[in-house]
Amino acid sequence: MGAAHLPGPGGRVRSCFERQPWIAHPVIVPPFACRDNAVRTPYRRGKTAGTPGVGRGAAWYPSGMPEHDHLTDHEADQLDAHWRALNYLSAAQLYLRANPLLDEPLRPEHIKPRLLGHWGTCPGLGLMYTHLNRMIRRTGRRTMAVWGPGHGAAAVLAGAWLEGTYGELDPDASRDRAGMLRLFRDFSQPGGVPSHTAPDVPGSIQEGGELGYSLAHAYGAAFDHPDLLVCAVIGDGEAETGPLAASWHSNTFLDPVHDGAVLPVLHLNGYKIANPTVLSRLPREELELLLRGYGYEPVFVTADTGTPPAQAHRELAAALDGAVERIDALQQAARSADGPPAGQAEDRPHWPMIVLRTPKGWSGPRELDGLPVEGTWRAHQVPLPAVREDAEQLRALERWLRSYRPDDLFDEDGRPRGQVLEWVPEGSLRLGSVPEANGGRLLRRLPLPALEPHAVPVERPGGDAHEPTRVLGGMLAELMEATRERRDFRLFGPDETDSNHLDGVYEGSPRGWQAGYKPTDEHLGRHGRVLEVLSEHMCQGWLEGYVLTGRHGLFASYEAFANLVASMVAQHVKWVHSAREVTWRRPVASLNYLLTSHAWRQDHNGFSHQDPGFIDHVLNKSPDVVRVYLPPDTNTLLCVTDHALRTKDTVNLIVAAKHGCFDWLDLEQARAHCARGLGVWEWAGTERASEEPDVVLACAGDVPTQEVLAAASLLRSWLPRLAVRVVNVVDIARLTQPSQHPHGLPDPDFDAVFTRDRPVVFAYHGYPWLVHRLAYRRAVHELMSVRGYREAGSTTTPFDMVVRNGMDRYSLVMDVIDRVPGLATRAARVRQAAADLRERHHWYIREHGVDMPEVVNWRWPGR
Amino acid sequence: MGAAHLPGPGGRVRSCFERQPWIAHPVIVPPFACRDNAVRTPYRRGKTAGTPGVGRGAAWYPSGMPEHDHLTDHEADQLDAHWRALNYLSAAQLYLRANPLLDEPLRPEHIKPRLLGHWGTCPGLGLMYTHLNRMIRRTGRRTMAVWGPGHGAAAVLAGAWLEGTYGELDPDASRDRAGMLRLFRDFSQPGGVPSHTAPDVPGSIQEGGELGYSLAHAYGAAFDHPDLLVCAVIGDGEAETGPLAASWHSNTFLDPVHDGAVLPVLHLNGYKIANPTVLSRLPREELELLLRGYGYEPVFVTADTGTPPAQAHRELAAALDGAVERIDALQQAARSADGPPAGQAEDRPHWPMIVLRTPKGWSGPRELDGLPVEGTWRAHQVPLPAVREDAEQLRALERWLRSYRPDDLFDEDGRPRGQVLEWVPEGSLRLGSVPEANGGRLLRRLPLPALEPHAVPVERPGGDAHEPTRVLGGMLAELMEATRERRDFRLFGPDETDSNHLDGVYEGSPRGWQAGYKPTDEHLGRHGRVLEVLSEHMCQGWLEGYVLTGRHGLFASYEAFANLVASMVAQHVKWVHSAREVTWRRPVASLNYLLTSHAWRQDHNGFSHQDPGFIDHVLNKSPDVVRVYLPPDTNTLLCVTDHALRTKDTVNLIVAAKHGCFDWLDLEQARAHCARGLGVWEWAGTERASEEPDVVLACAGDVPTQEVLAAASLLRSWLPRLAVRVVNVVDIARLTQPSQHPHGLPDPDFDAVFTRDRPVVFAYHGYPWLVHRLAYRRAVHELMSVRGYREAGSTTTPFDMVVRNGMDRYSLVMDVIDRVPGLATRAARVRQAAADLRERHHWYIREHGVDMPEVVNWRWPGR
Repeated sequence: MGAAHLPGPGGRVRSCFERQPWIAHPVIVPPFACRDNAVRTPYRRGKTAGTPGVGRGAAWYPSGMPEHDHLTDHEADQLDAHWRALNYLSAAQLYLRANPLLDEPLRPEHIKPRLLGHWGTCPGLGLMYTHLNRMIRRTGRRTMAVWGPGHGAAAVLAGAWLEGTYGELDPDASRDRAGMLRLFRDFSQPGGVPSHTAPDVPGSIQEGGELGYSLAHAYGAAFDHPDLLVCAVIGDGEAETGPLAASWHSNTFLDPVHDGAVLPVLHLNGYKIANPTVLSRLPREELELLLRGYGYEPVFVTADTGTPPAQAHRELAAALDGAVERIDALQQAARSADGPPAGQAEDRPHWPMIVLRTPKGWSGPRELDGLPVEGTWRAHQVPLPAVREDAEQLRALERWLRSYRPDDLFDEDGRPRGQVLEWVPEGSLRLGSVPEANGGRLLRRLPLPALEPHAVPVERPGGDAHEPTRVLGGMLAELMEATRERRDFRLFGPDETDSNHLDGVYEGSPRGWQAGYKPTDEHLGRHGRVLEVLSEHMCQGWLEGYVLTGRHGLFASYEAFANLVASMVAQHVKWVHSAREVTWRRPVASLNYLLTSHAWRQDHNGFSHQDPGFIDHVLNKSPDVVRVYLPPDTNTLLCVTDHALRTKDTVNLIVAAKHGCFDWLDLEQARAHCARGLGVWEWAGTERASEEPDVVLACAGDVPTQEVLAAASLLRSWLPRLAVRVVNVVDIARLTQPSQHPHGLPDPDFDAVFTRDRPVVFAYHGYPWLVHRLAYRRAVHELMSVRGYREAGSTTTPFDMVVRNGMDRYSLVMDVIDRVPGLATRAARVRQAAADLRERHHWYIREHGVDMPEVVNWRWPGR
Repeated sequence: MGAAHLPGPGGRVRSCFERQPWIAHPVIVPPFACRDNAVRTPYRRGKTAGTPGVGRGAAWYPSGMPEHDHLTDHEADQLDAHWRALNYLSAAQLYLRANPLLDEPLRPEHIKPRLLGHWGTCPGLGLMYTHLNRMIRRTGRRTMAVWGPGHGAAAVLAGAWLEGTYGELDPDASRDRAGMLRLFRDFSQPGGVPSHTAPDVPGSIQEGGELGYSLAHAYGAAFDHPDLLVCAVIGDGEAETGPLAASWHSNTFLDPVHDGAVLPVLHLNGYKIANPTVLSRLPREELELLLRGYGYEPVFVTADTGTPPAQAHRELAAALDGAVERIDALQQAARSADGPPAGQAEDRPHWPMIVLRTPKGWSGPRELDGLPVEGTWRAHQVPLPAVREDAEQLRALERWLRSYRPDDLFDEDGRPRGQVLEWVPEGSLRLGSVPEANGGRLLRRLPLPALEPHAVPVERPGGDAHEPTRVLGGMLAELMEATRERRDFRLFGPDETDSNHLDGVYEGSPRGWQAGYKPTDEHLGRHGRVLEVLSEHMCQGWLEGYVLTGRHGLFASYEAFANLVASMVAQHVKWVHSAREVTWRRPVASLNYLLTSHAWRQDHNGFSHQDPGFIDHVLNKSPDVVRVYLPPDTNTLLCVTDHALRTKDTVNLIVAAKHGCFDWLDLEQARAHCARGLGVWEWAGTERASEEPDVVLACAGDVPTQEVLAAASLLRSWLPRLAVRVVNVVDIARLTQPSQHPHGLPDPDFDAVFTRDRPVVFAYHGYPWLVHRLAYRRAVHELMSVRGYREAGSTTTPFDMVVRNGMDRYSLVMDVIDRVPGLATRAARVRQAAADLRERHHWYIREHGVDMPEVVNWRWPGR
């Protein structure tokens, strides 16, 4: 770490800013009138000498940058060579399939038949790559970059190729002529690499397709990596998205002691695909207010079309140096003995950030057919779209590429010349080699607690009841405790840890919180590893960043609102799917969801809180990655969670109860049941050993399990000679074939459980069609009747819910009677009794607002 | 409209602020140093007399509010009576099932058996209800409220009951003792109304379950309603969500000439369920910077636990008066002759907003069991949770309820006394009666253009090709033109209108944009009705607000990223589902999606841009509401869109091509085909009239249709005696039974098309399991082989895509040969030829990066 400037004896921070008045003000001068507080550490805003305000134009940041000691002319030349090389390589990836070094004049056959890629953002990303290199080289600081404008993979690939990491990981892409051509030909071509930052891109943890997550990913990567600096390069298009807009507030959750630093670089290039960007058109002063309001100390670096690159290099180098100094000072202050006592600082640190304004497609073609290209939306994708057909455009392309002076940059063999590589770091300090960005390299197995002390005793099925998530909270507390030093496990949630009855976890760690405290707060702490913010997008983004950089985590949420991150999980599954095909990517911990407060128990809430569709969404994705578990009781939840936390490279979805739920299986039975994924609960059925049952009652989920067992108990008492088999399904993918999902059950095994020819009445937690979609190839499928959730409207008692959805015990009994051949006549009176009870409940609930006593007081009878 | 204060002759705005120095500064004094521009209109920030800066503490807003002329003591008493009545009614809704007016001491049997609801947010919402009433009464301004903290339905219901709207809409809830008891008993009870603002709540357009959309809804409601003021009450929990954080920037899109005004009220009550809120813990100055950075002029109204309510009433009344004056001035300036010329103003207007800080659960129980309740998270739901069991708590509840002095508020019959209703507006000015909030009352039929001029001529199937969305753009342009005066149609999109080839629409309307302009901008205008921002959440929220207030719209987006709004559309479907059951809600226009740039044509992009799962998500929701259309060509897209824009109370999902796509049907055929929803394309098949075919080749979607027709053409040439039937499906719900979806096809009709016993090879646009889930009950289902999208990884040519997913013409031919009984042997050579061609393509694409010529040049042969 380059923390050369420590607080002096008086606690005052010495910093290079103080030696450079031109940049001192923007970073440490407060935008507000003085406070009474004396300046002790950067936690408190500095006392101002004069009366500078916000946005005072020239006093804020000089538009004409004087020469200074950050960068000599020679160094600026070296940086510029690297940047030109990146631009050359970026543009060439879009166009060239031959003649990579322009040894001969460009001809149409050198050009790819299809021109794909995004030029516009590349020069800006390249500029950041160049300058991050310099900063790393200068300070030796371990740094990782998250490239928000992911469409600019060409620039990032170029950076990785230049520093040699790309060639090390893919020997065909060696740092010479042949490797350069491979880089060009592979780009955005079938069998090659995508045009977005994907797992193929060294140093990236961010899929660059769907925008909005770079800042949350960066914070996730920085949590519990105290020595890491994560630079989040944020596009101004991406900055319009909700997730990104909210993610600025992540600074309220970054612990300066145990977490690393995030340096946001808001890259304003002014245009999206076709529109101006909102932030680039805000008045400069207003943008500054906004970023200061988010709690950052912004420095502006601005280049226009005509700005000499050397000037941009000087300004950006100075800004980056200043930012890193500021970060060092903040971290030192927080980590030193005289840092603010935990819970006492009045506000979180104000971290630096950079606003980098450069023209879109800077250094590319200025115009085409008389219309401006550089600096406009026309530079977004392929700025000269018809070079193969249009000789004029071909010549323009050649002029453009030669403007970077490739002969100065590469030798005859295509190897980068010395000046190009002068500021490129070495070894694992290179952006493409930083181990955190290939998180599996750092991954340790979790010290998972033994389940025995947490498991609930089960003398007989249904004899007692527990809140499964509450018990799990105790196990998570122990896991928090066991990882107190390692700090490689976190729990994320949108202000629902208490509501989801997981608050036991606070015994192991409080919630992390870096803003002010009040006496009425509970379970908050500066160093907590439970992170709660009312943004599922931030929770998910943080967790992704945390997991992809080599740690473990769990995201607990209301089931209905998991859909908020439906698109994010789809992208993460795609990432894992693709990363498995990238040989040098090491497996990372799985992304684990615990969904509770589910559709069937929204007592306080209504229709709006009922949506079990996240299961369907996840199960449509790559089967090698996705897993869905529906533990029916407390001990099965413990087993399933324990399993999920041991897995790698999957997305595990666990749907479980937070409300009191009968205990069906003891720990040993639960382990066996979860290992099988489904099974016959013989103690619940009435079948004879030697014969097939008359009917199979199947269930998946806690409420369905309760209703199926209640139905089984009614049938036992009302129709004692009926042979009923009860099946419970924990691992929902078991319902399908092995060809469809790795957990799929072979047909003979499935048939042994469900029979081939007996009616099956299946009570399922979610939309009933999912069971059909999974089981439609099974022999028994035509005899399956599936009850599930069907958007029946609002309600507030559990029993009303199951009745409205036709999944109550009485409806199940009626269904069994209707489906077992010959039973309808024999059991007509029983059927009528069930129908009457169902009707009675309806009016009872409407009068009393609660379920009727025979439902509330029902218990599994035992044998 | 209460625009009493017009710009004076000098263009300078006279305003009540100028007479009241205590409030003048926050609204019109700039936070920046002076500019050179002279002040002409409120578009430019005013010139400051002194040197006030941002956040100057006492100078900014006096914490001790002096008496002044906004509110007399008498008026404050009247408002307080209304507020106390709201609080009484809110609390009583949570608790009482009898004894509504506390005629006798509370006994346990007066209490509901289950206590459900959210008290914490109610007093703040009530305060806003009270003061919006006063403002409306004073100014006569048509005003609508969007209640972001939707969990506080009790307060909003209380407001509607007090003003009489609730009783008018539901005569059982009359404004007397009996109606009051009905209000209490219905609240959050089975068969009653939810505890969130739902369609049952008069004046609401916002489901209060999933948080984050209030501000976007408010802007959507304000667009093209020039006389409407929409007050968006935003909870500080909700404010942490991404959608809400982004929605502040909606002011960049609000046209002050043709749109109404949005008045955001950020309600800081400090806590969420269990955590402090981020914005409430920001230093006050920093919050102000943030809101100014978002472009608003905030006024702070703050009350603590000990603040006398009269003081809060005075401050809030003054703030609201000031805000409305400011809005009047901004609108007058924009709409008057000397407003800034279109495209010339350097920045959007800076609209006022209010930050209202009150204790959570203000006026409720101060503490329970020695722990503080008021002002903490403990006030979130039911602050006294055990009143039925605990006599102490029951007495505390009675003290609490009596603290509002119900005898002063209601007469013996439960009718509100005069002072309570003094400031309640009348008729349709009441918040619960404003017609915009029951949008169907304002809905007009769209003047849809004739399709004939837009339809493409089709001499023979596949003879020509068009880009369907490009043609649709022309139709939308005509619709924009036809609604130029009415302004009741808008197109929304996340910066993809050009990319989706819909840019023809600009002939009818530019994109709306209120920030600065540059010469390189195209198709932007101050009054445009195409709204583009890179936030699907904002697009969806705006469209919902626009539609629910009586207008029409279309949201065009990349298919993959529609998943970003998966949760939002689920909530909207629930809204429509529930609204249909509310007798006084009038049908609104449907919510229409056009998804393009779909999974099969992501040439520029990769794996990350492929996700057809939005269809599955939508089709899980209420079948009465959801519709999914997959038009296979240009004319069918025109027909389907025309239909969608005529429908009400549905959510229509249209998935269509933007790339060149063969024209299969002329307009007349397209109309007939779309009306049927699916049908046999006889011209494409080879079956004999009198016999069942040997095989059915079915398709849904543009690329599947092309591949199926290519396969049919190959089969015709290679196996001329094979009787092939070609079926195309436009309306995907036709595949299921009428009992499952209103568009479901009866079995006999389905069997007539698909047969009962012939193999069906189905090429489907999305995840193949959807077809199984819809068709599993059909006789032919066991013989159906479905090809679709299966997360196969990245690629860049259309043909590579279909091959990777097993949906290419050659695979389809092979599948047919494998499935038609007896054909495998006879057609072994043909099968091998198909396999060879598929293999050849693979290597061709990898070498050339484009599809092989026989695929690129393939045309439907005709007969």
